[in-house]
Amino acid sequence: MAVDTMKAVRFHGRNDLRFEHIPEPTCGKDQIKVSKEANLHEYLGGPGICPTTPHPITKETIPLTFGHEFSGTIEEIGSDIKGDFKVGDRVAVQPIIYDGTCGACKEGLPNCCYNNGFVGLSGWGGGLSEHLVVPEYCVIKIPDNVSLEIAALVEPLSVGWHAVKISPFKPNDYVLILGGGPIGLSVIQALRARGSNCTIIVSEVSAKRKDYAKQFGADHVLDPTVDDVVARCREIADGVGVHEVFDCAGVQAGLDAAIHAVRARGTVVNIAVWEKACSIHPNDVMFKERKYLGVATYVLGDFKEVIDAISEGRMKPEAMITKRIELEEVVEEGFKALVKDKDNQVKILVKAWGGN
Amino acid sequence: MAVDTMKAVRFHGRNDLRFEHIPEPTCGKDQIKVSKEANLHEYLGGPGICPTTPHPITKETIPLTFGHEFSGTIEEIGSDIKGDFKVGDRVAVQPIIYDGTCGACKEGLPNCCYNNGFVGLSGWGGGLSEHLVVPEYCVIKIPDNVSLEIAALVEPLSVGWHAVKISPFKPNDYVLILGGGPIGLSVIQALRARGSNCTIIVSEVSAKRKDYAKQFGADHVLDPTVDDVVARCREIADGVGVHEVFDCAGVQAGLDAAIHAVRARGTVVNIAVWEKACSIHPNDVMFKERKYLGVATYVLGDFKEVIDAISEGRMKPEAMITKRIELEEVVEEGFKALVKDKDNQVKILVKAWGGN
Repeated sequence: MAVDTMKAVRFHGRNDLRFEHIPEPTCGKDQIKVSKEANLHEYLGGPGICPTTPHPITKETIPLTFGHEFSGTIEEIGSDIKGDFKVGDRVAVQPIIYDGTCGACKEGLPNCCYNNGFVGLSGWGGGLSEHLVVPEYCVIKIPDNVSLEIAALVEPLSVGWHAVKISPFKPNDYVLILGGGPIGLSVIQALRARGSNCTIIVSEVSAKRKDYAKQFGADHVLDPTVDDVVARCREIADGVGVHEVFDCAGVQAGLDAAIHAVRARGTVVNIAVWEKACSIHPNDVMFKERKYLGVATYVLGDFKEVIDAISEGRMKPEAMITKRIELEEVVEEGFKALVKDKDNQVKILVKAWGGN
Repeated sequence: MAVDTMKAVRFHGRNDLRFEHIPEPTCGKDQIKVSKEANLHEYLGGPGICPTTPHPITKETIPLTFGHEFSGTIEEIGSDIKGDFKVGDRVAVQPIIYDGTCGACKEGLPNCCYNNGFVGLSGWGGGLSEHLVVPEYCVIKIPDNVSLEIAALVEPLSVGWHAVKISPFKPNDYVLILGGGPIGLSVIQALRARGSNCTIIVSEVSAKRKDYAKQFGADHVLDPTVDDVVARCREIADGVGVHEVFDCAGVQAGLDAAIHAVRARGTVVNIAVWEKACSIHPNDVMFKERKYLGVATYVLGDFKEVIDAISEGRMKPEAMITKRIELEEVVEEGFKALVKDKDNQVKILVKAWGGN
C-alpha cells in the first residue's frame, strides 16, 4: 500500500533545516488530524531543545518537523474523541506535551511537567508541515471572526497572558517590561486586555521595537543604554518603584535593574529563557521583601481566554505579523538570513500552502 | 546639675566592645523609658551594620549601645503617650526603627523602610544597658504568665513567625528548613504554632543543632554533608518535592538544593542575611514556576501574635535559652569566645543586673 506523503520542514541538527517530503500521519482513535494553515516563524535562530535521545513522551528524536505557533483546520477525528469537534472546524493548536502523571501534572500544571515537550520541537509533527495529528487537548476552536492567521498568534500571546495572570498584577499598577520583542508585546497586550489602567514602562534598545512597544500601548519607553532605568522607574512610579517587572530579555544587566526598580513587596516575573545562570544578591530581595517568580508558557485554559479576548476586540494583535513569506523561503533563506533583519520584525508568517 | 550614669556595653568598631558608664537617657514627651531586664546575646559575631556616618533617622554613629533582643519594665511614660501603659508594665521591646514617610512605610511595611534601623544596632540605646527610651510602638506589653526571660525571645521568634505568615504555607505542606540555628528553630515553632500538621525537614550539619531541631518539632533531620537533600526531600514529599523552603543559612550550596527540592509552584523563602551575591539559574525557577521570596524581620503586629502564642501555650520556646551569663562576662569573654562554642548554643541570656 502506497503511503501518502506531505511537505515538511524538518530540523536535523544545528543549522540544518531541510524541506522534505515525509509520510503523512494517520489519525489514531484518540487523536485529531489537523490540516495546517498559518504558521508563525520566530525571527531568531530557534531553540536547541529538540531531543537527540528519545523524548520521554513522544519517543522521537531529530529529525523533527518544526513549528509550534500555528493554526489549521480539522480534517479527521479519531473514534474515541468525545469533544464537540467536526471536520472543517478552524483551530489554534496548543502545542503542550505532558505526561499527566508527574507531580506537576497532578497539581494541574502540565506546563511544569517533569517530562514536558512541545509539538513542533519534541515530536508529534509541527506547524511547518501540511498535516499533523495531536491529542484532543491540543485543539482549540476559534470563532468565525478570528482569522487563521491571527489564530497563529495565540501561542505567543498566551505566554504573556499566563504571566500576567499568575503575577500579583492589579489594574492600577506600575509595570516595567524588559524587552520589546514578541513576548514583551504579548505582555503589554495582556495587561491592557485585562481591563488595566496600569502604567506600562518598556525598556528596549532597538528603535523599531520601541515603536512597536508604543504602538501596542506602552506609556513610557526607556533605552537602557541611555536612561537610568531604576531612577526613571522610581520617578514615574510614586517615587518608590514599579509593582511588577516582566523580564522578557533574560540578561544580567536587565535583572539588576529589575530588582532595584521594583518597590517593597514587588515582584520580578521571569518569562525569559536564560542561556546561563545569573547573579542575585539575596539581601536585595530580602530587605524589601521582593519576589522573584518564574512563569512557564501557559496552562490549559489560557488559549481559550486569549482567543476570547481577540474575538471580543480586547486584544488586537494583527500588527505583530510584520512579514509574510512562503514555505520555500524559510528553507532557502534559512534562519540566519532572518536574524539579520530581527530588529525590524516581530513575527513572520509562513503562509499556508497547497495539498499533497 | 549632675547627670545620672548607667552601665552599658557599647560597640566602638570591629572587635571593640566596651563595658562603660554612659549618661542615663531622659524620657521625652513621646517616649517610654524602659528599665532593661533580660537580654539575649547572639552567639555569632554580631552585625556589622552599625552606622559609621549618622544614621538617617537616629542621627547617631558608633559608639552605640548593643542589644536588640530584650525585655524590660516601664519606668517612665512621656506626657504625649496615649496608649494603655503604666509604670511597672512588663514589656518586650520591638526594636524596629523606621521613618514612616518612605514608600515602603506608606504601604505599611516599616520593616522594608528605605531608611530603616534597629534599636541596639542603629542608635536609641540597646538591650545591653540599664535604661533606654523608645517610641510607643516599640513597647509591647506581656501577660503575667510570660516571664521577662522568655519575652526576650520574642524578637527572634517574630522573625520566623513573620516569614511563615507571609509565605504561601498551608497546614499540610511539606517544608524544608535550611539551618537549625535560632531562626531555623523559630521557623519550626511558628509552623507548629500555626496549627500545622505539616511535615518539617531540617538540613543542618551540627550534631547539637540537629538535636535542637528534633526537640522543637522537626520530623526529619538531614545532614547536607551526607544526605542528598534534594533526593530525600522528593522521597519524603510525594515524590515531587517540598512546598516551601525556608533558607536560614544563606550559603550557595543550600540555595542550590532549595531550588531543586521545591516542587512546581513551590516557594523558596529567604530569611538569611547573605554575605555576598548568589548564583541562580532563572530557568530552574521558570520551568517549574517556582518563587523566590525575600522576608525581612517582622511588621507591627507580629510581636503581639508571638506573645499570644507563647501565653496560650502554642509555642514553648524556653529551651532556646541554652546558657545564662553576667553582663561582665559578655565583655570579658567577648564575642569571639562565644563563637567557639556556637554549635552547642542557641541563645545566651545576659541576666538583668542592678541599678545605677
